[in-house]
Amino acid sequence: MNGADRLCDTLLVNDVDVCFANPGTSEMHFVAALDRKPQMRCVLGLFEGVVTGAADGYARMADKPAATLLHCGPGMANALANMHNARRAWTPMINVVGDHATYHLQHDAPLTSDIESLARPMSQFVRRIASPEDVGPAIGEAYAASLSLPGVTTVILPADCAWGSVEPAELTRTPVPAPRQVDAAQIRAVAGLLRKHGSRAAIMLTGSALREGPMAMAARVCAATGAQIFAQMSNGRIERGAGRVAIPKVFYPIDMALQQLKDIDLLVLIGAQVPVGFFAYPGKPGRLVHENCQVEQLAVPGDDLPGTIEALAEELSARATPPAFIATPQAADGALPTGTLDADKVCAIVARLLPENAIICDESVSSGRSFYFDCHGAPQHDYIQLTGGAIGEGIPLAVGAAVACPDRKVIGMQADGSGMYTVQGLWTQARENLDVVTVVFANRTYAILHGEMRNVGVNDFGRNAKLMLNLDEPALDWVSMAKGMGVEAGRATTAEEFTKLFKGALSRKGPFLIEAVI
Amino acid sequence: MNGADRLCDTLLVNDVDVCFANPGTSEMHFVAALDRKPQMRCVLGLFEGVVTGAADGYARMADKPAATLLHCGPGMANALANMHNARRAWTPMINVVGDHATYHLQHDAPLTSDIESLARPMSQFVRRIASPEDVGPAIGEAYAASLSLPGVTTVILPADCAWGSVEPAELTRTPVPAPRQVDAAQIRAVAGLLRKHGSRAAIMLTGSALREGPMAMAARVCAATGAQIFAQMSNGRIERGAGRVAIPKVFYPIDMALQQLKDIDLLVLIGAQVPVGFFAYPGKPGRLVHENCQVEQLAVPGDDLPGTIEALAEELSARATPPAFIATPQAADGALPTGTLDADKVCAIVARLLPENAIICDESVSSGRSFYFDCHGAPQHDYIQLTGGAIGEGIPLAVGAAVACPDRKVIGMQADGSGMYTVQGLWTQARENLDVVTVVFANRTYAILHGEMRNVGVNDFGRNAKLMLNLDEPALDWVSMAKGMGVEAGRATTAEEFTKLFKGALSRKGPFLIEAVI
Repeated sequence: MNGADRLCDTLLVNDVDVCFANPGTSEMHFVAALDRKPQMRCVLGLFEGVVTGAADGYARMADKPAATLLHCGPGMANALANMHNARRAWTPMINVVGDHATYHLQHDAPLTSDIESLARPMSQFVRRIASPEDVGPAIGEAYAASLSLPGVTTVILPADCAWGSVEPAELTRTPVPAPRQVDAAQIRAVAGLLRKHGSRAAIMLTGSALREGPMAMAARVCAATGAQIFAQMSNGRIERGAGRVAIPKVFYPIDMALQQLKDIDLLVLIGAQVPVGFFAYPGKPGRLVHENCQVEQLAVPGDDLPGTIEALAEELSARATPPAFIATPQAADGALPTGTLDADKVCAIVARLLPENAIICDESVSSGRSFYFDCHGAPQHDYIQLTGGAIGEGIPLAVGAAVACPDRKVIGMQADGSGMYTVQGLWTQARENLDVVTVVFANRTYAILHGEMRNVGVNDFGRNAKLMLNLDEPALDWVSMAKGMGVEAGRATTAEEFTKLFKGALSRKGPFLIEAVI
Repeated sequence: MNGADRLCDTLLVNDVDVCFANPGTSEMHFVAALDRKPQMRCVLGLFEGVVTGAADGYARMADKPAATLLHCGPGMANALANMHNARRAWTPMINVVGDHATYHLQHDAPLTSDIESLARPMSQFVRRIASPEDVGPAIGEAYAASLSLPGVTTVILPADCAWGSVEPAELTRTPVPAPRQVDAAQIRAVAGLLRKHGSRAAIMLTGSALREGPMAMAARVCAATGAQIFAQMSNGRIERGAGRVAIPKVFYPIDMALQQLKDIDLLVLIGAQVPVGFFAYPGKPGRLVHENCQVEQLAVPGDDLPGTIEALAEELSARATPPAFIATPQAADGALPTGTLDADKVCAIVARLLPENAIICDESVSSGRSFYFDCHGAPQHDYIQLTGGAIGEGIPLAVGAAVACPDRKVIGMQADGSGMYTVQGLWTQARENLDVVTVVFANRTYAILHGEMRNVGVNDFGRNAKLMLNLDEPALDWVSMAKGMGVEAGRATTAEEFTKLFKGALSRKGPFLIEAVI
């Protein structure tokens, strides 16, 4: 057997059995090895941004990493933006990047590049395989790191390490380090602070703290102390809907975020980062809490976040306190919007018709600002969103979520400008017959940038600004593009048309795209 | 005025008047400044790979750099693969990457990343702007470096350096260092070696040595000494067609390349790198010349390549020798292929119908292997091709070439798998009404990888290999995709249909796509 076989076996022994791929010549032995492992599900993306975006969506829903297969530095370069998003979501991922044979690098052949330099900014772990026998240890380390850091790992596989021989061996599952437990004294201190600050305290969560159980436990702490609860501005996954905590996220618009957090004197971070402006704006602060706000970083990603919340509740004798902020179900008989379509109507219709146990992939950017609130009382669902601000993840995220959860409906809330970045992902949805409804907000502009231009004081746009901020002339025809990639699609210009198309899409299996002209 | 205004003025004073762009919030002041400069042509790409691929195509044809506008690390990450190709073509380019305000970086906001680490592998020059007053010097340095190295330059523009004030100043053109002249003694020595080795010598060219004049001069040297002539495997631009040198390129398939160069005992490199295998293959050499071949690197990119060839001709008294290898015009009355379409027929028809002064953008990969030879005797044209092996440059290259040369017909020879990487570029062709005919070789497979799998000994493909190497199920419908982005298109399944569509596309202005089903 060769190094590539060992690679596949090491993945499989660790239950990593999905590989999102876009191969090239230097990975032919890896492809041949995958071909010998029918238990590995290989999913082709027609561009590497689709590959890593799908791996991100998959792991967020499967709670285990997928592998990716990427071709040399340039292939990985195409994958970096969605690795960046995954890194910001603390998503476990094992990228396998093929490189030239070790002895061929000296020749600086055309595809040669410094893969490590490219990989490090978007990876929590980078490792170059040194020999065929090093393949197994390297993949094992990456697997453990992906789950314990947690995050994006990148392993560079020289072609001769893939094709070189290895001794057969009995493989066993790689041990994963247990998450760090937060110190009891720190728990006690923070509990005391929460008691002291009452409603001027807030707990901010991300990562595994945003699952139903830990979030409800945090809401018990809030009920016991009067504290408020927030999720970060962007998070890998939130379990949402009626009966769960209606957790607010930090707002993106800086003035709204400053307003939202202005009375918080104590901020307890459980996995979350201290909230900061997505961008700097002249004359506005970078941190979103006031200068005298006490910030307590109780736990960081990789720590036992649910255990931290449990310990805090225990310390506050709040384990049985009824949780605060539980969402009540939306009215069953509410009327659906009608008339000319706009973004808010699209959001309201999707929230109202949301099927039980759906997965929402949100890259709606400016169009979906009301959507998160609309869904507080919707049937229970998972909400996964763009985390790192690198647009072009929505369609791939939906691919990955649908591969992870074939029995659940995936709904992509997709801005048009962002959707064009990785539009090729529609083909993978068709190829794999994934149960995804993609709702495209066709406003034919980078709407968010119109607002940002006004923020910098430009209200009258000249020709160059219009050329750079508008997507009209010609308008994108999403129905034709989807058809071109094998995805059925329809266009809606009224709320009634949208409702009809959306109901139709929910009533069937397989990919469907709705161009919502707003 | 602010730093962003200074940036635009510094570009314009150096006659850099095209900016390919995909902006984000951190570049709003740059966008506003561009909006105040109607003499700057701003061209939007719906994905950053389109932006840098177009800048590459533009500079190859305009012989001066374009600027690009990219958004933070992830936006530049999307641009890296075509920066890699440009780097391998030694293309001048000035990338301006917006970043957070200097004082905001400490907060590690979601879009923050290590831009320098990402940029360096794909840039010959990287520089972070330190202050508003540093904008002018930084852009000036990048401009000079882009032309003198020559190559890809990347300048990082923190938002506060764009919005901060600068003193008005009288700007003057930035001096560009003159190219290095090759030492006369080295010329004499190489001339002597060429005389000695006769037909077992070869001159290998790239860069500016592949323009009509220098190439003809090199062919005079060949005529005088008996030497052979080659272009590198991949080159930024070759001036080709009847009456010019019919210069062979080094073959991609390793066995063909080894055969092609096996009798060369002296290789004189003028700008070119020593030829090596595009990939390593078990048991095959990395260098394509034999072990005892003497390799003389007479000049490197950035040196005066045409001057080097002139000096060599002078030394050999060959300046008036009739050049060898001049291509004779193709027969005017040759029959066009008929019947079921295949790749070779597409190539033959395009070569035969090629209009005078066309620009060919070649990313045909395996489908276009006969095309280069078919065009030796075609009407004079420029040939620009994928250089770094990072697929997904064909459509953007055509965008850039058409922007640079609005009066010339651009013909994109496009593999389907590669075309999907940056398919969004079709929209820019429509938006700008560029005179581009894109010929898609729709073989519905990564055909080159089928060959490479056989090279590693796999002849029977199982389910996973088929899933990763084939693009069928569903077949891509290029006509619908093009229509969705505003580009008219047609599909051909016979040679007659292809001929009719291609003639029709040549008879009109503006973008057209032909899906050649092969």
